[in-house]
Amino acid sequence: MTHQLLHLPKSVTVVEVGPRDGLQNEAEFVPTDQKIALIERLAETGLKRIEITSFVHPKAIPQLQDSEEVVKRIQGKPEVVYSTLVPNEKGLERALTAGVKEIGLFVSASETHNQKNVRMSIADSLKGFRNIAEKALASTVRMRGYIVTAFGCPYEGKIAPEKVEFIIDEYQALGIHEIALGDTTGMANPLMVSRLMERLRPRFTQAAPALHFHDTRGLALANILAALQQDIHIFDGAIGGLGGCPYAPGASGNVATEDLINMLEEMGIETGVDLRKLIECARYAGEIIKRDLSGHISRAGRVCWDGPETP
Amino acid sequence: MTHQLLHLPKSVTVVEVGPRDGLQNEAEFVPTDQKIALIERLAETGLKRIEITSFVHPKAIPQLQDSEEVVKRIQGKPEVVYSTLVPNEKGLERALTAGVKEIGLFVSASETHNQKNVRMSIADSLKGFRNIAEKALASTVRMRGYIVTAFGCPYEGKIAPEKVEFIIDEYQALGIHEIALGDTTGMANPLMVSRLMERLRPRFTQAAPALHFHDTRGLALANILAALQQDIHIFDGAIGGLGGCPYAPGASGNVATEDLINMLEEMGIETGVDLRKLIECARYAGEIIKRDLSGHISRAGRVCWDGPETP
Repeated sequence: MTHQLLHLPKSVTVVEVGPRDGLQNEAEFVPTDQKIALIERLAETGLKRIEITSFVHPKAIPQLQDSEEVVKRIQGKPEVVYSTLVPNEKGLERALTAGVKEIGLFVSASETHNQKNVRMSIADSLKGFRNIAEKALASTVRMRGYIVTAFGCPYEGKIAPEKVEFIIDEYQALGIHEIALGDTTGMANPLMVSRLMERLRPRFTQAAPALHFHDTRGLALANILAALQQDIHIFDGAIGGLGGCPYAPGASGNVATEDLINMLEEMGIETGVDLRKLIECARYAGEIIKRDLSGHISRAGRVCWDGPETP
Repeated sequence: MTHQLLHLPKSVTVVEVGPRDGLQNEAEFVPTDQKIALIERLAETGLKRIEITSFVHPKAIPQLQDSEEVVKRIQGKPEVVYSTLVPNEKGLERALTAGVKEIGLFVSASETHNQKNVRMSIADSLKGFRNIAEKALASTVRMRGYIVTAFGCPYEGKIAPEKVEFIIDEYQALGIHEIALGDTTGMANPLMVSRLMERLRPRFTQAAPALHFHDTRGLALANILAALQQDIHIFDGAIGGLGGCPYAPGASGNVATEDLINMLEEMGIETGVDLRKLIECARYAGEIIKRDLSGHISRAGRVCWDGPETP
């Protein structure tokens, strides 16, 4: 048995997706002022990338019906990239009109999940991205492509790696800058992450790989540790552990951003994020959705190596 | 940057400490019948080692005042080792009289924590173990020695590895069979675990190393992953995530046994434990302490690779 001392990257980029992936799952409408306040507070923590909303049809996700207003009214910081999800060409037009600088496209690696999520085949989703990508590139908008259910599907079970590879290739052919593999319902485990990323890493010839873990079975941080060892250094988190997928049974929230930042910073990995400010954001997120969130650090407090600290 | 594909052990032993480390922190007395029922159900899952109670003074931990009754009344399975904590010689006599086959001793790596926990110095704790160890060895009772706050102390902060090494040496000189390093208030991180175990591994010349993580900051499973890569293969868990240390501020429960078994089994590591039965135990543990526990798997259900499953 080989003993492995951990080899980890020196710095990591954390993408905050709470305002979009988190809030989209909340039944009770969060007032626009509070969404904006949450985003502006998040931008004060040192986070450089925040996914703030989605230009879906208001009837599909009523929670995000105020996407134009959110984009237009936030007091943007020049060093922060605010991105929005874009499900189709109509969504892209709305995003461009609102002045968005980064968009997110998404397709499932599972045919069944894609059908349930966007009511079309994977092939049709990818076909639809062609015009979007062309227009986005012409407008110098940065593109992120999600591969949803990349580590397993609640309907289909195992997902063959070839299916993920196919979408990676398609995304790269479209000129997409970053590809985020999503563990949408928390089916991944660290060994699977290690093996899949070992296999996929050489395939990312143009786009940067990012990982998006839900903490459904408590494995998100362990999965991220395995991915760090594969030299992956872009990870998504949702403040407070907000989130979930409305079309996937058993899905719980994203990994809590503050728990992720704590793990990284405790291991000496640079994130540029102020954990104290992030804990305040997590508490504010709990206030606006009116329930306790799943993150640990906002309850336990930071580790204080010089003695006791009140959380 | 080196890419590390995970190397993991083929099998792992999980020690269930919920009935002792978990319940001792519960203010409301759990009836003896329910404690016994929980232990007997745990023994049906395939777990081979269960820490069932502590022979502390009833006034120190009223919850465990029924330790004699618990030990005598459980319907023991021959393949399961039921252990008890023993704080002093009086405790050892009670344990031997009750017919216990394995005992646990404990001392903190932090002087301040040891004072607060047992009101004596580390040196006096170790001195007190001499007679206990001698009598236990004469009775062929197996001994486990805990090193509490081995990864950090809520009062003193960082713990020098030399302090841990000193206690390992003392324990081994006493003939102790297994040494469990405790992350009592969840201050460890995976890199610290990796480095400390890389350093300490060669020191375990006689006793087997075990690790005992609390999930205070959500890092227990990631810490265990780092330890697996150091070829550590004995880990503690508490059913449902029960537990905590009454004398350590901010301490939350042990890692939930069912979440740990799920991670191990999903990675193909043999544990001999039936996760379905364990989930039933976690639910029963929640019933008897009358609140929701922190484990994930009892809510989310196992990963079902053949399609959807109701939790």
